[in-house]
Order: sequence, then structure tokens, then C-alpha cells
Amino acid sequence: MPEDSRLRVLPPGSTIGILGSGQLGRMLAMAAARIGLMTHVYCEHSGPAFDVATRSTKADFGDESALDAFAAAVDAVTFEFENVAVATARHLARRVPVRPGARALEVAQDRLSEKEFIAGLGVPVAPFRAVDTPADLPRALAALAAPAILKSRRLGYDGKGQAGVAPGDDPLTAWESIGGRPAVLEKRIPFALELSALVVRSAAGEVAFYDCPRNTHEGGILRRSVVPSSLPDADLARARDIAAAIAAALDYVGVLAVEMFHLGPDVPLADRLMVNEIAPRVHNSGHWTIEACAISQFENHMRAVAGWPLGSTARHSDAEMLNLIGPDVSAWQRLAAEPGAALHIYGKREARPGRKMGHVTRLHPRSVQG
Amino acid sequence: MPEDSRLRVLPPGSTIGILGSGQLGRMLAMAAARIGLMTHVYCEHSGPAFDVATRSTKADFGDESALDAFAAAVDAVTFEFENVAVATARHLARRVPVRPGARALEVAQDRLSEKEFIAGLGVPVAPFRAVDTPADLPRALAALAAPAILKSRRLGYDGKGQAGVAPGDDPLTAWESIGGRPAVLEKRIPFALELSALVVRSAAGEVAFYDCPRNTHEGGILRRSVVPSSLPDADLARARDIAAAIAAALDYVGVLAVEMFHLGPDVPLADRLMVNEIAPRVHNSGHWTIEACAISQFENHMRAVAGWPLGSTARHSDAEMLNLIGPDVSAWQRLAAEPGAALHIYGKREARPGRKMGHVTRLHPRSVQG
Repeated sequence: MPEDSRLRVLPPGSTIGILGSGQLGRMLAMAAARIGLMTHVYCEHSGPAFDVATRSTKADFGDESALDAFAAAVDAVTFEFENVAVATARHLARRVPVRPGARALEVAQDRLSEKEFIAGLGVPVAPFRAVDTPADLPRALAALAAPAILKSRRLGYDGKGQAGVAPGDDPLTAWESIGGRPAVLEKRIPFALELSALVVRSAAGEVAFYDCPRNTHEGGILRRSVVPSSLPDADLARARDIAAAIAAALDYVGVLAVEMFHLGPDVPLADRLMVNEIAPRVHNSGHWTIEACAISQFENHMRAVAGWPLGSTARHSDAEMLNLIGPDVSAWQRLAAEPGAALHIYGKREARPGRKMGHVTRLHPRSVQG
Repeated sequence: MPEDSRLRVLPPGSTIGILGSGQLGRMLAMAAARIGLMTHVYCEHSGPAFDVATRSTKADFGDESALDAFAAAVDAVTFEFENVAVATARHLARRVPVRPGARALEVAQDRLSEKEFIAGLGVPVAPFRAVDTPADLPRALAALAAPAILKSRRLGYDGKGQAGVAPGDDPLTAWESIGGRPAVLEKRIPFALELSALVVRSAAGEVAFYDCPRNTHEGGILRRSVVPSSLPDADLARARDIAAAIAAALDYVGVLAVEMFHLGPDVPLADRLMVNEIAPRVHNSGHWTIEACAISQFENHMRAVAGWPLGSTARHSDAEMLNLIGPDVSAWQRLAAEPGAALHIYGKREARPGRKMGHVTRLHPRSVQG
């Protein structure tokens, strides 16, 4: 890669490669099209993003000749999920800019690296211990004390690869339920609410923030995001500072989501927000930006990847985003008829339980409320 | 076609065929994808809509076997331009619902039919005379008196196929400059401003309106649309009534744009708005609905075509849309960096003069202004 490729601006007509074919890739491809960028989706299986991309390739992420052809056909590469193999990202990065880079993937796809990296920045995380084998369990549990959560180091998302350990539980049961894989035992923290910080960082290092949504999970899956979060300004500023510090330390380009626990107003400000996990990509808790901002998280991610200046992250309306999970999507006709509701359906062929099929964003214009 | 096909609701996963591959088709395809509808673009030449559609067919509009294959692959058909041959629409309509129907095309693609149809509804239009041959010119000009405009009956758009006739001009020069084709001579009306009414009508006959933008043309091409228009409520209500009457008379399904002249506040309300022309499709003067409304004109058109309930047409922000014509688009980097500006680039390969290459929408949230 030429040294100055970082600051090259890809003009309209350029092609951005996207690894992954899910709904995030779909929304990224649509945002790219809005500003005249072409997209080329690469994935091991076809999916919702294939339907809207300019081009698509169905090939294994380890298929080097397919990756080379893909790299030759695009001007930059991004990804819609953090479990892209680091080897894949590094292979591509020798040929074309990959944004955010392999380092962000490396950190985010291993819970142990992630926690060590964040703690290393002086940012609070829940106390944790590495559990490589069952033999590590008793000491880890003794150090943290139940209740705790055992989380597999790799390939966890939407609550998968996690098991709770209540006082008196045999931690081996949790170990077996997550498939007996290297894991992290994490102290369960009683939190007041969950929020996420959504930061976007340009190739030139410019940083902008969307308003932090307050999030509600059900069964480990995001159910609802609301802006404004009702948190005080100082808490929101702290959340932005944390996200900016993580983005800067990763020399990050694109949208980064940082999921946090808020421990309540009685905890000192410096300890009040605890990072749960980071997602080196656009994030479900930012879907409301499509309707409530002139420039969505998806467009700003693509702007950053293409070396463009960032667009405004200002919010013109209050908003609530509700995920449609599994059979929820069967209510589409009712939702389509609801005044002011913006319905999104991802075009997945089958509504399996726990599968994100769409979402609905309800806008509450501030002018009406205030 | 089964009798009740009109009221059939096409579920997510259905495919809407779009005739035409330009920027309107592109924005329609993206709006469809948002709500889980597939698209299949059919056009004689490739274009911006091909890049985002689920499928595309490049074939002649008169190629009946290609049309039959297209009809077999889609659940309903719409179009992005009004110069689709009526024979093409009728051929398709025998196989699959075509919305809005062939009747709307027939009326809109012939300026004489259009004016007679609108006048027949009791809606003011500029005085006009048919000019089939040069021999009709003197009598037409004597009846209307210059200044007037000679407009070809067919295939006119963006000021093409039009020539002014000033007092003392030889009308034969105008006739020759528009290619010596059957035309309409229209009295030139001194108007105070131009506006458009944007109505959407569902398959069930439900009607909704976007706020009427005030439009500015340059060289016959729309340059700028602004909402609110600053017109009094009574004038806006009159504009909506006119649009609704036209939509109802055409048994219209989808978005219909009615371009109007406002003759000034001193003219009685019933005569104050004069219809210039109708566009049986989504319209350039409604592009601001993408950012300023939860549901854009493009999505509402697709909802109507798919038999869905209409989405909200409410506007949460004031807005200004500026077209990027020909070389204007070279300013994309400056526009991309402008805070709050939403830039759209259509992905056309070549920025020819007079060609619409993109647009920019500037939002002015009402809460900030008021």
C-alpha cells in the first residue's frame, strides 16, 4: 500500500467492498449508493446485502484467489461484522485499504484482548479472568465471586456463547453449555441502564458522535434503542470521551460502537460508565440515525471508508428503534399502517427465532414535543 | 387479471418491476429495499437504477418476449418516466398489475390530452391551441396572442421540445426549432411563483399529500425546491384539492406530481393556481422528502404499488433541495463537507450539460428555527 493511501479521497463512482451479506451490509450498500459509491459485497453465503449491492461475490473468506479478484475490483474494503478472520483482513490489506483495519478486528473478536485493551486505556470494564481450560474455573470464580457470566472468547454475538453462573452453581455446567471453549469469566455488574456510544472517525482523524442511545436487551439481543437517553450531559460527555479514546487508540476509520453499562448516578463520574463490548462497525443501536439524522451512521461509515469528510451527526428528532426479531416481523402490515413509524424489513427468506428480520423507528419530532 | 388483484397486498419478498433505469428508478429501488420488497428494473439501456436493483433486464420496450419474461418475474410493475409506450404498459397490464395504469401514461405523455383532461375537470390551465401542422400556427397565435410557447405534444421534458414565441416572432421558427412535430401553442402566463402538489394514492383509494414545494426552474430544468412554500393555507388546500381531483379521475395508484403556476394573491382563489403539467410518477420536486419526512415519496409510491397502506407524509423539518446539473456535481467534496447538507449522487458515468447528476438537500429543523 502506498504510504499516502490513507488520505486519498475516493470519488463518486469508486467501489467499496463489503465483507458480509447481512442487514448491516445491506444498509451500508444503500447508503453508499446514495452518495454515488458502488459496492461489491463478498460473503460465504448470499444474504440481504446481495440484493442491493452493485456486485457480489459468493466465496469462502479463506479463498485467496477469490479475495485477490475482489481486491482488484474494489478501491477500499470494509466489513459489516467483527468475526471476519484477521488473516482475511490482512490478506486484503496488502492490496487495498481495509477500514477499520485488522487491528480493530483483532481486538474486538476476542473478548480477552478486548477487555485487556480497554482496561489498558484506563477505561472501566467489569472485572474478568481468562478461563482457558476447566481447571481455571475455580480460581477465576473465587477471585470474582458469583454472580458472574462465562463468555466464550470468540464468535459470541446476540447473547450466544454466554452462560450465567449464579452463587452455588457448578461453573463446569456453564463451561459445557458454551461448548467448552476458551472463555472469559466476567463479574455480573448490577447496572442502572445500558447505553452505547456511536463515534465515527474519518481517515483524516476527524471525529463525530451520534447521540448515545439508551438500549434494552432481551435474551441477550438488542430489543430497543431510544434517543435521547435522558442521561445528564456530563455522563454523555464521558461516554463520548471513552469512545473517542478507543477509536484513537485503534487509529480507527469508520463507525465504532461502544456498548456500556451505566452504574447509576451515585457512582463517581469516572467509574459510572463501564464498557461491556465494542463493535468495530455500524451498530444496531444506531439504526434510528437513518430517520432522525440527515446523515445516517451507514453513510458516515462509508464516507470515512472512502476518505470523505464526515457528514453531520446532528439529530433533528427524538426517536425509538424497536427490533423485529423472528416472528415479530409478521406484524408488518400493522406496523406499515402505524402513522409516523418507519418500517425496515431486511429481505431475509426465513424468520427463524432470534433472527433479526427488520426494525421499526418511531420519530417524535422535537418541535411537536417541545 | 383477476378482478380483486387491485386489493391484493404484496408481502415483503415480492418483486416490483420498474420500467426505466434513471435516478428516479434508483431511488424507487432503494426505497423498496428498505421495506423488504425486491425490484427488477427493465430498460433499453443500463443506468443508475441497475446498480441497486435486485435484478435488471436490458431489452427494448417493444420486445414482447422480454416483456413477458419480465412480467412473469414480477408481482407488479411501475415506471419512473412518463414516456413509456402505452402499448408496453398495456401489454404488461394483461399479465400483472401496472401502477399507475396505462391511462395515466396516455394522458401525461401527450400535452394536448393532458390539457384537455385537466381542463375537463374544471381545473385552470393556460389557454392553448392544438398545432398539428404549420398551417395551424397563424390561427392559434391569433387566438392566444404572443407571448406564447410552442411545446411538442410528445417526449418533452426538462424544457426540451419547447420554443418561445415573442410578439413579432415568426411562429414557423419555433415550429422548426422543436423539430416540426405536432404541438400545442400555449399562452405564456405571467406567474408569481411555481409550486408542485405531491399526492400519493393507495390501491384502496386512500390519499395523502406531501407539503407543496415552491420550485424554481432554470433553462426549463428544475433547479430548486423549498418547503414550506410560504403560501397561505387556503392556497395550499386548493393545490391539494386539484391534485386529489386529478388522481381520483385517473383512478391513480402511486405518487402523482402536479406542477402549477401561482398567479399571485390578487387573483381569486379558484383561478389562482393553474396546472402546468402532471408527472405520473415520483418527482424531482419531492426529493427533499427523503430527509425531511419519515417516509419518502419513493417509499410511499412503492407502498401504493404493492397495495400497502400509505406511510406518513408529515414533514419534521424545513428543507431546500438543489439539483446538481451537469458540471455542478464537481463540487461534491465541498458539498459533502457542508454541515447538515445531505448529498445525493446518482452514479451516472458522464456529467453532460443539462444532465441531472445529483442533488443536495439542506435541512432546517423547525425546532431550531422556531
